[in-house]
Amino acid sequence: MESPLPTFTFRPIGRVHSPYKETREVPKGLGAQHRADGTIEIFPEYEEGLLDVEGFSHLYVLWVFDRAGAPPETWSGTPPADDRPHGVFATRSPRRPNPLALTVVELLRREGRVLHVRGVDMLDGTPVLDLKPYLSNIPADQLRRGWLAEAEARRKS
Amino acid sequence: MESPLPTFTFRPIGRVHSPYKETREVPKGLGAQHRADGTIEIFPEYEEGLLDVEGFSHLYVLWVFDRAGAPPETWSGTPPADDRPHGVFATRSPRRPNPLALTVVELLRREGRVLHVRGVDMLDGTPVLDLKPYLSNIPADQLRRGWLAEAEARRKS
Repeated sequence: MESPLPTFTFRPIGRVHSPYKETREVPKGLGAQHRADGTIEIFPEYEEGLLDVEGFSHLYVLWVFDRAGAPPETWSGTPPADDRPHGVFATRSPRRPNPLALTVVELLRREGRVLHVRGVDMLDGTPVLDLKPYLSNIPADQLRRGWLAEAEARRKS
Repeated sequence: MESPLPTFTFRPIGRVHSPYKETREVPKGLGAQHRADGTIEIFPEYEEGLLDVEGFSHLYVLWVFDRAGAPPETWSGTPPADDRPHGVFATRSPRRPNPLALTVVELLRREGRVLHVRGVDMLDGTPVLDLKPYLSNIPADQLRRGWLAEAEARRKS
């Protein structure tokens, strides 16, 4: 039997300031648009890490679903975008084994250690673990979106 | 003064099997191609979370740079793709405040709790924290890639 892997502990580098105070305010489901503006405040000790970030139009934000509640009893469920269950690794559900979230935001401008961004879907005060530059796309003709494309097609028909 | 945020602890959901045994084997720098095939083994207790994942052509893999060494003393450095320093949040450097990594892989096929994927840039045995479906691109005409685009232009000239 192989030895189990250790756990890993991470410390927030900053937090999100968002117009959303409660989960039900965040747009969800098919066709949900995340156009809200907000800011990402990076804590002073990490400000140096922002050098040259303003050259990028989009950033990946890795953050924590810190108000997602207790983990579910099963790892599949029915997302807002569909009427049938799917595995958590095939959805963006906040109720997953590790409450890690990923959002691509548009970087509008930087003011010191505050990033003004568009496309926030986080609650106000959400802890941020990392930022990374968005560098490239998957060619559109190679992209398949499984159950989500099927759910969209059903809704249109 | 605002209260500090807590830390967050995560447990691996699986691990990567990759052809790369050491960091120096992983392609890096300008124009590096990540075309290597590998597998992601999801641990049995999370297999249900894979339901319908095979409908997606690409997945985000959130993983841990578990062999990145001690954190650096400063949060900026010179990446392999350039000859001048940039902040860690403007690079993909493994030496960052939280050693979290993000890779988009192409899902070739699923066999039970093993995903055969293309595009691995992880070392063999790397702990995986989460998988998410890749759903959409940023329109190419809206994408700016800062220092990286500048470094590429300098190399060509």
